[in-house]
Amino acid sequence: MTFINKLKAAWTKNNSLLCVGLDPDLDKLPKHLKELPHPFFEFNKAIIDATGDLVCAFKPQFAFYAAYGAEKELEDTINYIRDKYPNVVIILDSKRGDVGSTASMYAVEAFDRYNADAVTINPYFGLDSMAPFLDRADKGVIILCRTTNPGAGEIQDLKVGNQKLYQVIAERAATVWNYNNNIALVVGATHLPELRDVRTIIGDMPFLIPGIGAQGAEVEATVKNGADSTGAGMIISASRSIIYAGDGPDFAQAAAAEARKLKDEINQYRKLNTAAKHE
Amino acid sequence: MTFINKLKAAWTKNNSLLCVGLDPDLDKLPKHLKELPHPFFEFNKAIIDATGDLVCAFKPQFAFYAAYGAEKELEDTINYIRDKYPNVVIILDSKRGDVGSTASMYAVEAFDRYNADAVTINPYFGLDSMAPFLDRADKGVIILCRTTNPGAGEIQDLKVGNQKLYQVIAERAATVWNYNNNIALVVGATHLPELRDVRTIIGDMPFLIPGIGAQGAEVEATVKNGADSTGAGMIISASRSIIYAGDGPDFAQAAAAEARKLKDEINQYRKLNTAAKHE
Repeated sequence: MTFINKLKAAWTKNNSLLCVGLDPDLDKLPKHLKELPHPFFEFNKAIIDATGDLVCAFKPQFAFYAAYGAEKELEDTINYIRDKYPNVVIILDSKRGDVGSTASMYAVEAFDRYNADAVTINPYFGLDSMAPFLDRADKGVIILCRTTNPGAGEIQDLKVGNQKLYQVIAERAATVWNYNNNIALVVGATHLPELRDVRTIIGDMPFLIPGIGAQGAEVEATVKNGADSTGAGMIISASRSIIYAGDGPDFAQAAAAEARKLKDEINQYRKLNTAAKHE
Repeated sequence: MTFINKLKAAWTKNNSLLCVGLDPDLDKLPKHLKELPHPFFEFNKAIIDATGDLVCAFKPQFAFYAAYGAEKELEDTINYIRDKYPNVVIILDSKRGDVGSTASMYAVEAFDRYNADAVTINPYFGLDSMAPFLDRADKGVIILCRTTNPGAGEIQDLKVGNQKLYQVIAERAATVWNYNNNIALVVGATHLPELRDVRTIIGDMPFLIPGIGAQGAEVEATVKNGADSTGAGMIISASRSIIYAGDGPDFAQAAAAEARKLKDEINQYRKLNTAAKHE
């Protein structure tokens, strides 16, 4: 099944646009897990078990594993999701980007070694260096457009003719780069006008939207500005606000409660939004 | 010692601007190494032993290790360089880039886990997300400016006012981002007018210049357009043309011969260049 079809099926099956980010930080893990031989995997497993029915996607952030040399735990985490929740989309969030011959190696890393359904990539090199990812028609390629950080505008808002750079990226993604219909775009929930703006440019292409939760963006406005014509079209990602909702032995239940709350809140505004469109 | 000082000392000690890229591709390794338990490390060790006196830097390309799950061999390679050639600069070529909290993890990965002297990063996120790297005043931060791939211009040549995007990156790197004097810029030897152009913008900031050798750029023109006011200022990187110069039991000697040839060729044009400047 292609990435887009798997994503659409996941939205429907769990009635959820929520993505839980698996970013295990050794400093923040519950005490009783820190002593175990594979603390990241044990932590992730508990979070996955508790939230797998509430999400459309899981998104492990590569940096957290790379900092600690925990690649094996990343592999085990992805395999665990694949076995237990085969319908949930797995996004490797590693922001790859390099010249073509090297990009081919990164495509092998994401799609063959880690067996992810999709990977995040950086558009700065241009199409020829994204092609090794895009050519994998069954896999998803999630391209950075307007990122969540406060200083994102320094480069991404530079004026290119009548457009800003992130708008150029969105337009090229929608028109030139999407030859396999496997692209999604990263736009942060912290930048609502940009979110609305990019939605206008890209039609019903999916968004990956970080910035909800710990980064503080509002759910209602995100759904209103980001939804596609069907009221879906978004992978809304939260990490810290969910996975560190508790830090005791019941941390997984706390995460599940937080995930359910956010999932329901998103769905509530989707309904209002869809109702408004049909008025 | 800071990155810049270590680099300057390495240029002088080995009288070399050459950097050898350590990009071990399992398909291209000499047959007798493929059967060994740690083929990448064995290959790298032989290349390092044969070329360590001929270079200013070694540059392992992360993707080649990541594709095969060979992080341990990457660690061992870097430790081996550090022990045997403590004066040679180690560049982790991983093109990192992410929002601040995640970028901090990538800084830990590059500088603490792998203990590299410098790391390559992507400027698309803007300064606030490069800061976790730039704040490490003793370490080098090598920012993508104009990359070697044929399609680099699609994004990097976009017109921003009177400048192209890569010129904006160069200017910001030279004026705003270099608060710890630890930046170098990537400009491909395949784009000579851009190389000259960026040299004018950045003064004596160092370049990392890939694209020599397998990617076919000419040495003379590269040195002429890329050198700083002292006739140095460049880390000129070649990978495939050197490390795969031979594929038999004498592959390391073949690599050394190729490295020496390129080092000498670079130095020959540096002399001409410096002579011309003093005419």
